[in-house]
Amino acid sequence: MTAVPAAKAPKTAISPTRAENYPEWYQQVIRGADMAEMSGVRGCMVIKPWGNGIWELIKADLDRRFKETGHENAYFPIFIPLSLLQKEADHVEGFAKEMAVVTHHRLVNRDGKLVPDGELEEPMVVRPTSETIIGEAFARWVKSYRDLPLLINQWANVVRWEMRTRLFLRTAEFLWQEGHTAHASEGEAREETMKMLNVYVDFYRDVMALPCIPGEKTPGERFPGAVNTYTFEAMMQDGKALQAGTSHYLGQNFSKAANISFQNKSGEMEFAHTTSWGVSTRLIGGLVMGHSDDDGLRLPPAIAPQQVVIVPILRDEAEATRIMLYCEQVASQLRGQNYLGQPVRVKIDSRDLPGPDKRWQWIRKGVPLILEIGPRDVEGGNVALTRRLDLAARKAILPAAQLAATVADELKACHETLYRQAEALLEQRTRRDIRTVEDFKAYFGDGGENSFNNGQGFVRAPFCGDEDAVAGMLKDMGVTIRCIPFDQPAALGSCVLTGKPAKYEAVFARAY
Amino acid sequence: MTAVPAAKAPKTAISPTRAENYPEWYQQVIRGADMAEMSGVRGCMVIKPWGNGIWELIKADLDRRFKETGHENAYFPIFIPLSLLQKEADHVEGFAKEMAVVTHHRLVNRDGKLVPDGELEEPMVVRPTSETIIGEAFARWVKSYRDLPLLINQWANVVRWEMRTRLFLRTAEFLWQEGHTAHASEGEAREETMKMLNVYVDFYRDVMALPCIPGEKTPGERFPGAVNTYTFEAMMQDGKALQAGTSHYLGQNFSKAANISFQNKSGEMEFAHTTSWGVSTRLIGGLVMGHSDDDGLRLPPAIAPQQVVIVPILRDEAEATRIMLYCEQVASQLRGQNYLGQPVRVKIDSRDLPGPDKRWQWIRKGVPLILEIGPRDVEGGNVALTRRLDLAARKAILPAAQLAATVADELKACHETLYRQAEALLEQRTRRDIRTVEDFKAYFGDGGENSFNNGQGFVRAPFCGDEDAVAGMLKDMGVTIRCIPFDQPAALGSCVLTGKPAKYEAVFARAY
Repeated sequence: MTAVPAAKAPKTAISPTRAENYPEWYQQVIRGADMAEMSGVRGCMVIKPWGNGIWELIKADLDRRFKETGHENAYFPIFIPLSLLQKEADHVEGFAKEMAVVTHHRLVNRDGKLVPDGELEEPMVVRPTSETIIGEAFARWVKSYRDLPLLINQWANVVRWEMRTRLFLRTAEFLWQEGHTAHASEGEAREETMKMLNVYVDFYRDVMALPCIPGEKTPGERFPGAVNTYTFEAMMQDGKALQAGTSHYLGQNFSKAANISFQNKSGEMEFAHTTSWGVSTRLIGGLVMGHSDDDGLRLPPAIAPQQVVIVPILRDEAEATRIMLYCEQVASQLRGQNYLGQPVRVKIDSRDLPGPDKRWQWIRKGVPLILEIGPRDVEGGNVALTRRLDLAARKAILPAAQLAATVADELKACHETLYRQAEALLEQRTRRDIRTVEDFKAYFGDGGENSFNNGQGFVRAPFCGDEDAVAGMLKDMGVTIRCIPFDQPAALGSCVLTGKPAKYEAVFARAY
Repeated sequence: MTAVPAAKAPKTAISPTRAENYPEWYQQVIRGADMAEMSGVRGCMVIKPWGNGIWELIKADLDRRFKETGHENAYFPIFIPLSLLQKEADHVEGFAKEMAVVTHHRLVNRDGKLVPDGELEEPMVVRPTSETIIGEAFARWVKSYRDLPLLINQWANVVRWEMRTRLFLRTAEFLWQEGHTAHASEGEAREETMKMLNVYVDFYRDVMALPCIPGEKTPGERFPGAVNTYTFEAMMQDGKALQAGTSHYLGQNFSKAANISFQNKSGEMEFAHTTSWGVSTRLIGGLVMGHSDDDGLRLPPAIAPQQVVIVPILRDEAEATRIMLYCEQVASQLRGQNYLGQPVRVKIDSRDLPGPDKRWQWIRKGVPLILEIGPRDVEGGNVALTRRLDLAARKAILPAAQLAATVADELKACHETLYRQAEALLEQRTRRDIRTVEDFKAYFGDGGENSFNNGQGFVRAPFCGDEDAVAGMLKDMGVTIRCIPFDQPAALGSCVLTGKPAKYEAVFARAY
């Protein structure tokens, strides 16, 4: 008898696959899509044009949402003097261990030697977040209740000196937006905090095509200096959690530290109630881990720098002019269509490279629709369509006019499929039935295995709220409390970890 | 006989006026328009929403022009390690005296004291410009002639430790864009250098409504490390020059330092030829000094965050609903019109403040068209129009429908008038007839007087090119060589300063 050869795994564009080595797969998806790379500067990344193009689209969409909710953009100094930072004790403690500290203002001494020189009277840090420096400005701007609410957003770079870095998910420098608002009353400030969390959740679903669990952070996980921290937690394809963004009600902690006070309608002085909220280039890390497959990135059309790429198949000079002309016509037809109120983004890739190489480059970059056009397509008035989400299927040959008529639907379907798949994953890898500490430990195991294969994910279970009591146990497992979801069960029972009466249901998971 | 009282100067919204105290007038225009302010951090400004809104429009327009000329945006680290910076000797020397140096990565020591801790093995600077750090990336990205040209732009913050600062014109931190490109040949790189200078000059004229003199910097005024530096110089209303932006041909200086090399078509290794070019928030300083009058800022419509502001005149509750409804109708009519391909930007200012106060706020902010609408206007279907450039004239009462039909023309006329006035100023305060060093010295005087009143400006005159020989004389006068304009006379004669044979005509001026 002849041995039957083992079924060969299909060739993938990304190696290793998720099942083989999930962390390395993540790096290779980013490399394959040419999105970013680590620089020669410790912990800092270079965001390459494809990654930056995605960030520009994320920014534009969020910026529109912020403006529609009454916020204005401003820009504040990158440096924070020590004296300003230390006004809020919890805050400075929370960040002091991981900051870039500027101590000198020259790099050359009197002998012409290149060494730090001109020591500053007071050291400054590169902002890790801007509550203190923006609070200083707000204190100047707010005098009367008429100056409130003050609704400001900033797009900026920030620095947190991380020891273990990973592209997009954790880097020393990252790009973000930080909203900072001041209000006359606690009620208004709390309303703002929740409103902006909801802006994020809507954006995450409608633009990033990702579901999430919105909720409140436990006291142990709060932003340093906040009264309440709200979060939206997403699940990556390996079942781990990603804190995608946060919105904080800061109470009067920062307004008292910075003296943001105002005369109320009765003529009395009061401290304002402030909020802050932010998302960062980390969103792109979540996008990669949330949507990509073993052939690379898959992009929701709303943030795809190109939604359609046309690859002309040029074999000889004589054909080339005719094919390029036809490609231009198809591109122009497609650009005449709208998706989410904007003309469809179409690129013709006429680089001097083999057609299949180009097609695979765009597959790795996650472009929703890829068209190949050769001489026969021109004759028939057709295009050969590859849908990024449907690689297994053959290329579809269809009339160009038909694609133009349906391109918006195609993009919509791409978005919906991505969302549905991510939603199904969240459901599949969430356990709601774990009620004993033994089952809890058995579920999370030791975490040594490839997280993509281990079947672990989120545990939603009753929790007593005693974070100190469970800190050691959770740390040993590498598990954290992600949030107290807004969506709470009718009945609670006893804490899954301590057996004491539960205060609320919590979400437990390993996290990035 | 009774004494005739002296004619009273008209009341101005900005005090002091330009003639009274030009530098202080500049600060007060910015304050009056609520554009920016100095922060508590040495030399750093806060860009407030009105100033930031102008910057966003400048960015959007330039970004479109960069993309249309084939450039892509990317983002590079904010920190540059000393070892990287010092690879190009002229470059590091040019910047070493004014850099923010990061030496530590913690702000708390083991005893919990808040002091710089965790000293870095190698100090880093906050980027003053990014040639070196981007060069490091380019060296990784460029392997073959097929990778060229590489056309990258970055929008970023940069830091130069300035001792004497002035809002927008000179601050320790500022916002800018920096284009960085690599090419296979000197010819292509030189073409890029000039192309981007022309993009700036077109933008300056068509968007900022400002004329300029494009030309080359003399060797003594070159960017540290450049082979050629090109500039476009603008004249402020006091006759001083402002270097509005620059474009550099860097030759192979940076590519040799960073090893940006490629295999050419013959298989040989060559160093690339690189360029860089940038403009910054300084453009806003030039905008203020170039266009404002004694009532405050005047904005070219292309970069006015609001092009039309409607001020409802509300006297009692009963009228209010009707007036607001009418204002909404007028706003909607105007928003239905396009200027430069975009819907007209209209704001209704319904704040609870007296109408005249609001009108004057918008005048100080430079909004091109301000409409007041009261009960009588509603009845007659009219608006009361104030054109920002025409304050002396009475308000014009005209039918709302008529304004909607002509609003794009009104904005166009505003742009053209601003440009024409700036062009007339440049012509009036440029002397082309000074041919002796005595006349030169007499013209520039000692510069002690208010520069707005002293009649000084630019001198275009033949120059021998010997910068060393004239350095002392020019320094004593506070005059610099702004550029060698592209537009050169047919005949030159002898150098205005040394009497030696002239090499070219140069532009001399005091400068910001």
